Amino acid sequence: MKGVCFLVTVALMALASSLASASDPSPMQDTCVAIDEPKDAGLDKSGNTSNPVASNVTTVNVEQIKGLNTLGISMVRIDYEPYGENPPHTHPRATEILTVLEGTLYVGFVTSNPENRLISKVLYKGDVFVFPIGLIHFQFNVGKTNAVAIAGLSSQNPGVITIENAVFGSDPSINADVLTRAFQLDKNVVNYLQSRF
Amino acid sequence: MKGVCFLVTVALMALASSLASASDPSPMQDTCVAIDEPKDAGLDKSGNTSNPVASNVTTVNVEQIKGLNTLGISMVRIDYEPYGENPPHTHPRATEILTVLEGTLYVGFVTSNPENRLISKVLYKGDVFVFPIGLIHFQFNVGKTNAVAIAGLSSQNPGVITIENAVFGSDPSINADVLTRAFQLDKNVVNYLQSRF
Amino acid sequence: MKGVCFLVTVALMALASSLASASDPSPMQDTCVAIDEPKDAGLDKSGNTSNPVASNVTTVNVEQIKGLNTLGISMVRIDYEPYGENPPHTHPRATEILTVLEGTLYVGFVTSNPENRLISKVLYKGDVFVFPIGLIHFQFNVGKTNAVAIAGLSSQNPGVITIENAVFGSDPSINADVLTRAFQLDKNVVNYLQSRF
Amino acid sequence: MKGVCFLVTVALMALASSLASASDPSPMQDTCVAIDEPKDAGLDKSGNTSNPVASNVTTVNVEQIKGLNTLGISMVRIDYEPYGENPPHTHPRATEILTVLEGTLYVGFVTSNPENRLISKVLYKGDVFVFPIGLIHFQFNVGKTNAVAIAGLSSQNPGVITIENAVFGSDPSINADVLTRAFQLDKNVVNYLQSRF
Amino acid sequence: MKGVCFLVTVALMALASSLASASDPSPMQDTCVAIDEPKDAGLDKSGNTSNPVASNVTTVNVEQIKGLNTLGISMVRIDYEPYGENPPHTHPRATEILTVLEGTLYVGFVTSNPENRLISKVLYKGDVFVFPIGLIHFQFNVGKTNAVAIAGLSSQNPGVITIENAVFGSDPSINADVLTRAFQLDKNVVNYLQSRF
Amino acid sequence: MKGVCFLVTVALMALASSLASASDPSPMQDTCVAIDEPKDAGLDKSGNTSNPVASNVTTVNVEQIKGLNTLGISMVRIDYEPYGENPPHTHPRATEILTVLEGTLYVGFVTSNPENRLISKVLYKGDVFVFPIGLIHFQFNVGKTNAVAIAGLSSQNPGVITIENAVFGSDPSINADVLTRAFQLDKNVVNYLQSRF
Repeated sequence: MKGVCFLVTVALMALASSLASASDPSPMQDTCVAIDEPKDAGLDKSGNTSNPVASNVTTVNVEQIKGLNTLGISMVRIDYEPYGENPPHTHPRATEILTVLEGTLYVGFVTSNPENRLISKVLYKGDVFVFPIGLIHFQFNVGKTNAVAIAGLSSQNPGVITIENAVFGSDPSINADVLTRAFQLDKNVVNYLQSRF
Repeated sequence: MKGVCFLVTVALMALASSLASASDPSPMQDTCVAIDEPKDAGLDKSGNTSNPVASNVTTVNVEQIKGLNTLGISMVRIDYEPYGENPPHTHPRATEILTVLEGTLYVGFVTSNPENRLISKVLYKGDVFVFPIGLIHFQFNVGKTNAVAIAGLSSQNPGVITIENAVFGSDPSINADVLTRAFQLDKNVVNYLQSRF
Repeated sequence: MKGVCFLVTVALMALASSLASASDPSPMQDTCVAIDEPKDAGLDKSGNTSNPVASNVTTVNVEQIKGLNTLGISMVRIDYEPYGENPPHTHPRATEILTVLEGTLYVGFVTSNPENRLISKVLYKGDVFVFPIGLIHFQFNVGKTNAVAIAGLSSQNPGVITIENAVFGSDPSINADVLTRAFQLDKNVVNYLQSRF
Repeated sequence: MKGVCFLVTVALMALASSLASASDPSPMQDTCVAIDEPKDAGLDKSGNTSNPVASNVTTVNVEQIKGLNTLGISMVRIDYEPYGENPPHTHPRATEILTVLEGTLYVGFVTSNPENRLISKVLYKGDVFVFPIGLIHFQFNVGKTNAVAIAGLSSQNPGVITIENAVFGSDPSINADVLTRAFQLDKNVVNYLQSRF
Repeated sequence: MKGVCFLVTVALMALASSLASASDPSPMQDTCVAIDEPKDAGLDKSGNTSNPVASNVTTVNVEQIKGLNTLGISMVRIDYEPYGENPPHTHPRATEILTVLEGTLYVGFVTSNPENRLISKVLYKGDVFVFPIGLIHFQFNVGKTNAVAIAGLSSQNPGVITIENAVFGSDPSINADVLTRAFQLDKNVVNYLQSRF
Repeated sequence: MKGVCFLVTVALMALASSLASASDPSPMQDTCVAIDEPKDAGLDKSGNTSNPVASNVTTVNVEQIKGLNTLGISMVRIDYEPYGENPPHTHPRATEILTVLEGTLYVGFVTSNPENRLISKVLYKGDVFVFPIGLIHFQFNVGKTNAVAIAGLSSQNPGVITIENAVFGSDPSINADVLTRAFQLDKNVVNYLQSRF
């Protein structure tokens, strides 16, 4: 009978919000919640890719497995239809290491100002790539068949900021003047982009 | 005569690249490079705002003051013309606390998936606001006069990822198909956006 | 409605005690308490300097803005009358970066044993200086007009140990024999110093 | 042309020794060595299991991919013949999250004194399990076919201490009297066990 | 009247379980529980060494002194009869520094794979030795008199994994097939070893 | 033959300066310098107490034992003549846990502003006390015989700031006006205090 422990509050909170941690603090105990019953996580099953980006991320983080609490790691499976993509996003609290199980992926990330250098590569089955913490990155299925990847992330809850959602689809919307000037776009284009969400 | 010390390599590297650290490791010594000669940093002077976003960030980080090395903090002054903005960006390695010295700023940040909640506010002279590590945020001068802000950041080199630069202006460019699908835009619009950089 | 989250206990405790953290642990979520209502912090207003040291520190830390919780940064404004000073003190949990908004300050810090080297400088408007974590430091207004400074600190609650208060003004008092021997003073001088608080 | 950066020394050292880090310090820059050329890591290929434990670990850590330097994560593929096992071991610097790609594994770890509780489970394809940092754990193929697992580890170089190698196979050997008393064994048994390495 | 504070939950939990932390997170306040009443810890008294290994560890960690909470350090006294030993074990969350008060100890630790190098030494009164975090180590009294050592550990609750207990004495037992193959032993020997606990 | 490793630079620097670290970063390898030759540290021998405070601290940190490098812990022995004291000081980078081997000590520390609460106690042989990181603390021998203590500190190089040395004995001296106002003393007293060093 455990009662309370360090970070158990995080587990509770996980029910209501999106967590993440770049370099999670060290644990203060062996384990923090009962981990007798690890999940039948189903990472063997393809996720539902019937969506505009034709991809799906199946997540195993502290929200799915409470036993991950305080342990600073999580895992995902990503499925891609042909030409499907995991669109540009960042993890504010984790670096990601990814290996391709099936298919061919064009992947990349962009370094910070002022270089904004794109580091990209085409990955084949068995290849491994790393996306550093906080940087914008993406994967795109450039093969003619479905693709599948497994990735480890260095946080029990890495957080995801999908760029187009955060910029054009926030709730409430960012004032269109801000985006118009930032992207040097016609205001009608910004309004159109915001109306999509 | 110090010779070498923990993280001195970071200082060297700073000459060639953009650094940052969300929660910098603790220092291992009082100071790491000679700090007898702190910079006449000139944070009393307005930066040059003659640019498309009509704003300027004057930075005091480990690249400007070597004595900041290993100490986990830096400072900036931001100037804004009327309707000028510090466009949507993230700091992969720092939280930012900002106070308004002059003018009126509409500021905000967006939380991560799936909420993408916009937390925004109009700040007047003397107000303070905080932008959490890794989240997309902006400031926009909604007053009729110039605005000035001072901000502290929790890293000796926080890093800056300006969204429009990283997504549409990387070097080399991200394949237009990736952006077309991600933003659900006509490919001509994407090509146009990429041509601006 | 958040409920609980990592470190919320710190916010509660903040009501009753002085907190601080040199290199705060990384956050485990985007934000930890509602931050819809950032403070009208009033950093544009001079603090009350009618006191023996003729200076005043206006603090914006996790006690003033709950949204700073888990984010590892805070800010202060310091006002000084002519010849006013922020007397020798340490922050057990933060490095400080300071810029002068108005006036002229003689500032410095002392490194640890056995060197006890004083690093000092006269700062003018716009200059920047850094006080490393845990070291004794001070600012002294050597100009003929009031001075104002803004500083960022690398903790949500840096803690302040003012040397003369901690040594001669603790509650209860340190046994006078301890101080007499440490400072090699006449016991009457120690008793006199302790009687001031 | 990067030159030097934080922790590059670790990469150099990796050529000569076994590294690992439970909760690696946060990075101080986007990336630390050129990562234009991620490895054709070959995680799609089965490792050589012709050895006494009939299993093989293919590692992708900072020794294989220099670009992992400072990023705090690594990945392995583990192959098991029927009744093959990854014998009891610890990672002094990482928690491990594992998913089964093929086959059926009996896995477990033991908590610290005084409970020494065994947490074990039979995992099928797609299941996920976590081994907390520093605890003794193992996987055993209880199926009639080969098994394959992929695991993420929360360090760029987690370190491996295989119990039987460290205790009975160290170089030079631990004095047999120490082991005889510790394991309450006949000294001949200890000598026999040590002679196997 | 404190109420709650960062990590107070750990103190509560300490009543029921074995904690430890390799590099404990930094504290967020001066102290976290009342520390007006430090323990008469009795480190001057010899522990009871009437047990199979003829040694005893008297621990002063966060379970004994609540004031250690969040402070990242603890202390032990170890007593050894002649030929008594502190058998091979690891601390998953702490490095240990040890000094000999009385007697003569043969001490050592083994580095991780693939070297498994034994670093050992005979220590006399006043000597100091360090056991790095997570590595298997031991002390053995090779003198003809009782020995006494004092050690500091870099965690408020370092955790102890005694190898023979964790491997052969877990509750429930590890399947004997796993140990038989790992140690390349006859199954009867494994069954015998397991029956001892 | 190791070559280079993480933090080896710290070891080099240790020859020239005073280091310390409150919560040292986690190590990235088992050990960082050859540790085949631990020091005959001589903690069994009394230090030389012929000095104004009639006490002596014998230190075993990374300057004495290179093998402590990156391991985040150190140890000291303190000797006190009757009425000798370890005068008020802080460790900017470590918490300290102390046990009394011989004699009777009046010990204490003062919490930070605004409470400045003195937590003190008389310790007898075998008692244990903890001094939290960054707080001013002292030990005073109130017995009629010599006293001896052993302490562990949570850093490979904790740093020491002796208050009277740092404030009145820095090199060069702090401007006397600063100290006069801070301590509300006659300037002659300040000049006298400064002349002692």
